[in-house]
Amino acid sequence: MTKLKGNLLYGQSGGPTSVINASAYGVISEAKKHHPLIEDVICMRHGIKGALNEDFFIISQQDPEQVELLKHTPGSAFGSVRHKLKDFREDDTDYVRLLYIFKKYNIRYFLYNGGNDSMDTCAKIADYMSQIDYDVRIIGVPKTIDNDLPFTDHTPGYGSAAKFIANTMMEISYDMLAYPNGKVTIVEIMGRHAGWLTAAAGLANLSGFGPDLIYLPEVPFSIEKFKNDVKEIYTKRKQCLIAVSEGITNDQGIFISSSSGLKDAFGHFQLGGVSSKLASIVQTDLGIPSRSVEFGSTQRAAAHIQSLTDVNEAIGVGRFAVQSLLDGKTDLMVTMSRNPGETYEIVYGLEPLHRCANIEKTVPLDMINERFNGITQNFIDYALPLIQGENPPKYKDGIQQFTKFR
Amino acid sequence: MTKLKGNLLYGQSGGPTSVINASAYGVISEAKKHHPLIEDVICMRHGIKGALNEDFFIISQQDPEQVELLKHTPGSAFGSVRHKLKDFREDDTDYVRLLYIFKKYNIRYFLYNGGNDSMDTCAKIADYMSQIDYDVRIIGVPKTIDNDLPFTDHTPGYGSAAKFIANTMMEISYDMLAYPNGKVTIVEIMGRHAGWLTAAAGLANLSGFGPDLIYLPEVPFSIEKFKNDVKEIYTKRKQCLIAVSEGITNDQGIFISSSSGLKDAFGHFQLGGVSSKLASIVQTDLGIPSRSVEFGSTQRAAAHIQSLTDVNEAIGVGRFAVQSLLDGKTDLMVTMSRNPGETYEIVYGLEPLHRCANIEKTVPLDMINERFNGITQNFIDYALPLIQGENPPKYKDGIQQFTKFR
Repeated sequence: MTKLKGNLLYGQSGGPTSVINASAYGVISEAKKHHPLIEDVICMRHGIKGALNEDFFIISQQDPEQVELLKHTPGSAFGSVRHKLKDFREDDTDYVRLLYIFKKYNIRYFLYNGGNDSMDTCAKIADYMSQIDYDVRIIGVPKTIDNDLPFTDHTPGYGSAAKFIANTMMEISYDMLAYPNGKVTIVEIMGRHAGWLTAAAGLANLSGFGPDLIYLPEVPFSIEKFKNDVKEIYTKRKQCLIAVSEGITNDQGIFISSSSGLKDAFGHFQLGGVSSKLASIVQTDLGIPSRSVEFGSTQRAAAHIQSLTDVNEAIGVGRFAVQSLLDGKTDLMVTMSRNPGETYEIVYGLEPLHRCANIEKTVPLDMINERFNGITQNFIDYALPLIQGENPPKYKDGIQQFTKFR
Repeated sequence: MTKLKGNLLYGQSGGPTSVINASAYGVISEAKKHHPLIEDVICMRHGIKGALNEDFFIISQQDPEQVELLKHTPGSAFGSVRHKLKDFREDDTDYVRLLYIFKKYNIRYFLYNGGNDSMDTCAKIADYMSQIDYDVRIIGVPKTIDNDLPFTDHTPGYGSAAKFIANTMMEISYDMLAYPNGKVTIVEIMGRHAGWLTAAAGLANLSGFGPDLIYLPEVPFSIEKFKNDVKEIYTKRKQCLIAVSEGITNDQGIFISSSSGLKDAFGHFQLGGVSSKLASIVQTDLGIPSRSVEFGSTQRAAAHIQSLTDVNEAIGVGRFAVQSLLDGKTDLMVTMSRNPGETYEIVYGLEPLHRCANIEKTVPLDMINERFNGITQNFIDYALPLIQGENPPKYKDGIQQFTKFR
């Protein structure tokens, strides 16, 4: 194996998570150990766009205290992007520019931190650089609250979002008990095609307080069945708490949400509004008072209730990615496998990028109950280890401290 | 002063806070010290309705561990109620029933934990019992996230809600920075006539990340001025984060929100929907992408991010209420005054109930900026001490533990 000496280029892409910056911390702290083989970590501002625009944060020029704070900072400390690279065989403009930048900054290591779409970007750059014979090693670092990447037991970011959702659902549930004649409360949770986040609402029930009904996008949603479910619960309990994925569809695969008809840069339909739609159905058709709650971006940004397991694994995938680069690995995505046995334990591994790009892993049927309105013990066994442990925020005067880079 | 021997009846009323149960803990733990003068604490299920229905939790029969958990439990552990007592001179049905219950259970101490409306209930019961010459001492224990009770520097419940709002706003703000061309995000915050909670969003800016614009119900809201404010910020920053009170009104005093036209039991209009209304105005009139976020009940139920100062004061008002009852005090509400000087310090006091009922304390003009779209240093000086310190949740397997009473 040739020893490569140069800079490491790191970028964040796609929707933020509350621990993507912990992965950046893992990358930076591991890279430091391998100086001067890795001379410096250069971070792109707004992902691949930062590389194209030569817009960088140079880590050696940053305050180390701000680097430490990455472990407690949600969002994308370096900025994110949704930019789909074209096939370089059709249009190589971006690639020629990237090659120029890679050469100019002597980039020999490239890490891209993201979800499915980011692995697509990563694979395309690896393809191009290998075809043009530029010596750079490229690895994808997984992250997504959606937990929908293949070949990995789960993704960093999911555990913390799941912890926020489970704990907030039980708070809402307990709050609802205040009044004897309550409402139907419908909470809309992120997840376009994968119901992992919505299913996490079910963990709340381990406390004795949580949702009565959970609807995932993996199985068809029927308005009639929904109304019967709600009627049944409401008759018994005089209230009903529901967790519903933004991405539920009918048996024709058409979104229940009032789709705006707009598509994002990757051609996905923009969703939202399913909870208010269902709330008005409950109110109008069943005559039961109902209200909807949308967590919005708080579910991916709630740094104040991170899962320590998740934070440590986010750091872990970053570290492992750097080690793998130095081991000569390229064109791969970091994965996590769960060791068999009673004790939860994770082993990091690698999978070819092109196998990971653009594939979405959904909740298997054995984790969804037979009535399609709840989860099974299999899901609890799977998800509960991921929300363990706390990473207390760095408060100053009751206000969290987040990384500020120059 | 005659020594009264008997039971203490305690109830919760109105919207829950994340620390109202800490006040219950204060009441219970203090009452225990004065056994057998106070024989037992009897808690009404669903406030005054529990008394009318003879539906009680007897504290001596509860697991002490569950009582301890009250310090970490949001919502109303005993159930709440919105029930307006009639004037007993017009209809004394409820009062005659209450008197029967008071006598049957030898109730000599009565504590009612709530906001403005609950102080009204408390005052009416005190009036009746005094007129009928039944010897019972009655004190109101303040709570409300709205912070709108008069004669008290602030109310227990406000600090924790403010801490959740400030920290969540900075998380949303940091999350928004991920993309260079962002959206206008409009967060709707509770507070019918008082903007205390919405103003708390401004504390986020102490971290460097927070709302650009804050609109309170204390000053008139102009759609035209709003559009200009947004345009100005968006032109500069390419994004804009807004905190808006659900209760903002135009210069005629008419709610901006799409009022449903429905009133609650106390004759208040049900609000909601102002953020989505403003978001569609931004989208349609300014052509800027916009989205709305409603925290909903999470802002009053987020036990996982309580302010320790708030928890301790919630316990404190409960303790002080019991001590005051034993000092022979009656027909009063507990208040908190801030000692002058640099160091934050609170002294508990008492104020006649009839002066506190049905009065709402709003944010003074010197805490609102001149452009009516933000807060001043005066507000920060006032509110910052209230969110200090953390009360780490009691997690079991990553899930909070809340009180379960029999």
